[in-house]
Amino acid sequence: MNRQAPTLEDVAREAGVSRATVSRVINGVRNVDPSIQDLVRRAIERTGYTPNRAARSLVTRRSGTVALVVSGAGDSSADGVPAGGVSAQDQNAFTARVFADPFFGRVVSGVIGHLRPRCMHPVLMFAESAEARAEVLSYLRQGSADGALVVSTHPEDPLPALLAAEGLPAVLFARPARPVALSYVDLDHRDGGRQAADHLLARGCRRIVTVAGPLDVRASQNRLDGFRDAMARQGRPYVPIAEGGFTLASGMSAMAGLLAEHPDLDGVFAANDLMAQGVCQMLREHGRRIPEDVAVVGFDDSTIAVTCSPQLTTVRQPVEDMAAEMARLLEEHIRGVRTEPTSVVFDPELIVRDSA
Amino acid sequence: MNRQAPTLEDVAREAGVSRATVSRVINGVRNVDPSIQDLVRRAIERTGYTPNRAARSLVTRRSGTVALVVSGAGDSSADGVPAGGVSAQDQNAFTARVFADPFFGRVVSGVIGHLRPRCMHPVLMFAESAEARAEVLSYLRQGSADGALVVSTHPEDPLPALLAAEGLPAVLFARPARPVALSYVDLDHRDGGRQAADHLLARGCRRIVTVAGPLDVRASQNRLDGFRDAMARQGRPYVPIAEGGFTLASGMSAMAGLLAEHPDLDGVFAANDLMAQGVCQMLREHGRRIPEDVAVVGFDDSTIAVTCSPQLTTVRQPVEDMAAEMARLLEEHIRGVRTEPTSVVFDPELIVRDSA
Repeated sequence: MNRQAPTLEDVAREAGVSRATVSRVINGVRNVDPSIQDLVRRAIERTGYTPNRAARSLVTRRSGTVALVVSGAGDSSADGVPAGGVSAQDQNAFTARVFADPFFGRVVSGVIGHLRPRCMHPVLMFAESAEARAEVLSYLRQGSADGALVVSTHPEDPLPALLAAEGLPAVLFARPARPVALSYVDLDHRDGGRQAADHLLARGCRRIVTVAGPLDVRASQNRLDGFRDAMARQGRPYVPIAEGGFTLASGMSAMAGLLAEHPDLDGVFAANDLMAQGVCQMLREHGRRIPEDVAVVGFDDSTIAVTCSPQLTTVRQPVEDMAAEMARLLEEHIRGVRTEPTSVVFDPELIVRDSA
Repeated sequence: MNRQAPTLEDVAREAGVSRATVSRVINGVRNVDPSIQDLVRRAIERTGYTPNRAARSLVTRRSGTVALVVSGAGDSSADGVPAGGVSAQDQNAFTARVFADPFFGRVVSGVIGHLRPRCMHPVLMFAESAEARAEVLSYLRQGSADGALVVSTHPEDPLPALLAAEGLPAVLFARPARPVALSYVDLDHRDGGRQAADHLLARGCRRIVTVAGPLDVRASQNRLDGFRDAMARQGRPYVPIAEGGFTLASGMSAMAGLLAEHPDLDGVFAANDLMAQGVCQMLREHGRRIPEDVAVVGFDDSTIAVTCSPQLTTVRQPVEDMAAEMARLLEEHIRGVRTEPTSVVFDPELIVRDSA
């Protein structure tokens, strides 16, 4: 650490560009030609230059770190958590549940994809209790992180409103249940539901049922609405519904119930891939062939869609792209080039594989 | 922020303990009675006290953040990556691949479980290229993180040796391929392989084959050694082997090859659950019933073991516990109460479900 460290000037000389250009690339300013960015990055690597984080942070007053928060709504009696605190066991159950769904890994992937080239890094935080929320707010207030990316898992989650009230930079994944003055990215869930219905109908399915997600979650409700609207437009006013919990087990039991009541069903739309996998397992247990006897459409296009058997036809949610956009918006809020909240809504896309 | 913030004294008064006790709980000193820890945590929550990170960090010279690094061995000609740098696409492929396996989510879960009650947080970093490794080292040198937890994905990964050479606090998940003076946690992989063999033999399987992991990875090699040793002890010197890549697709194609050469096989040990799932899918495509015709044992006991059909009998690797222990060891190194490297080796456990 006492040796002469390479400087910004060394990098500029090596790349054959100005000091200002190197600085703009390092600080992630966007209007730099990609080929010049590449030139500078290679020069950074050849010289072994490392931006002096501490010095930079004195100038920019930024830590180069953002909080990636998975939040719930714990510590309310609704969750059955005693108001006094959350046990270590509850905490571990929450973190384990979050990572049991491949969804969150895709979020992390997209966020890191955007932050890394800018030498920014995500701190993982969980906020499913009042105590944990206070810790997130304190971490941000004290400047340990410059802003927060929030993936909320519960409609009653109070964190978005707390962040907005304190004026802390934050961007949400999905529109919050109640209006909050924060930017968010979202998916056109209604259109995704419509695509699932249109595909099943176009295949010739005539006795179609659906396994919905938790109906107090806006995304589930919208997927269902879009699905039912498309069915209604084709003269099918009634679709049998079972509500699941976005888990494999709930998909299995929902399907068992639907099969008992509607043994002649020939098409299923499940509101996420994990439930669709459960649907397929239950259909197979009842001797139904997929897609010959029953066609199944999932939602997400997560890794499960290609690892389960048969591979799922599913409505793709571009989670990695959405997460990268969320990081980009946060960066703009942090740098002050964006001051008003905005929203970016992505389009879903039907991916046809073997199950329908 | 201008309001009167609750102090350590307020917490002590509320909890009915001394200021020193509160301080010890907050700083994660271990020999505090759990019931008193609980008392203090509840008081912290009731008063709304948040430890002043900046002030604390001035005293302790610690950031309260640790780097959780997933590292590879990129930028060497062996990986086919041009020495000049790694493209954004390569970076994204690496992060996506890491999260496609439920293993890493379990590591994060375990690490967070240990760090959270101590108000410490993990920064996620990927280090699969020379550039990314330099960024990790710089982040640590400058004190943005107090130490590193390293999950290495490649036997040629140079990061552990670089960390040791600079004397930066670090703990590894799994023993490094070459001796390095760093603490690590590990699993008795040989014993895991032994348990798989003993279970298949005890079931009465007589024509047993195995789908191994990549044989340049020590853990794969040890699982295979333990498996073959146990078979040999029962007079079975020869076990047909196919090498997979720890992915679903590699499990399927390895199984296809084994079935072609040994159509009468009746037992399979796959060196991870993802490959075991591929093995099951391929067996089903060939009309074999599991476990009636062919028994299958996996390794890991990841979420896949219970979501795939049939549910997998598998050798459990307690990844969450191992990750928590890794965090605990790092905390000791950071606090200076542990100065010499140590190793903690966990025992695997056979979990019997439906596949064998």
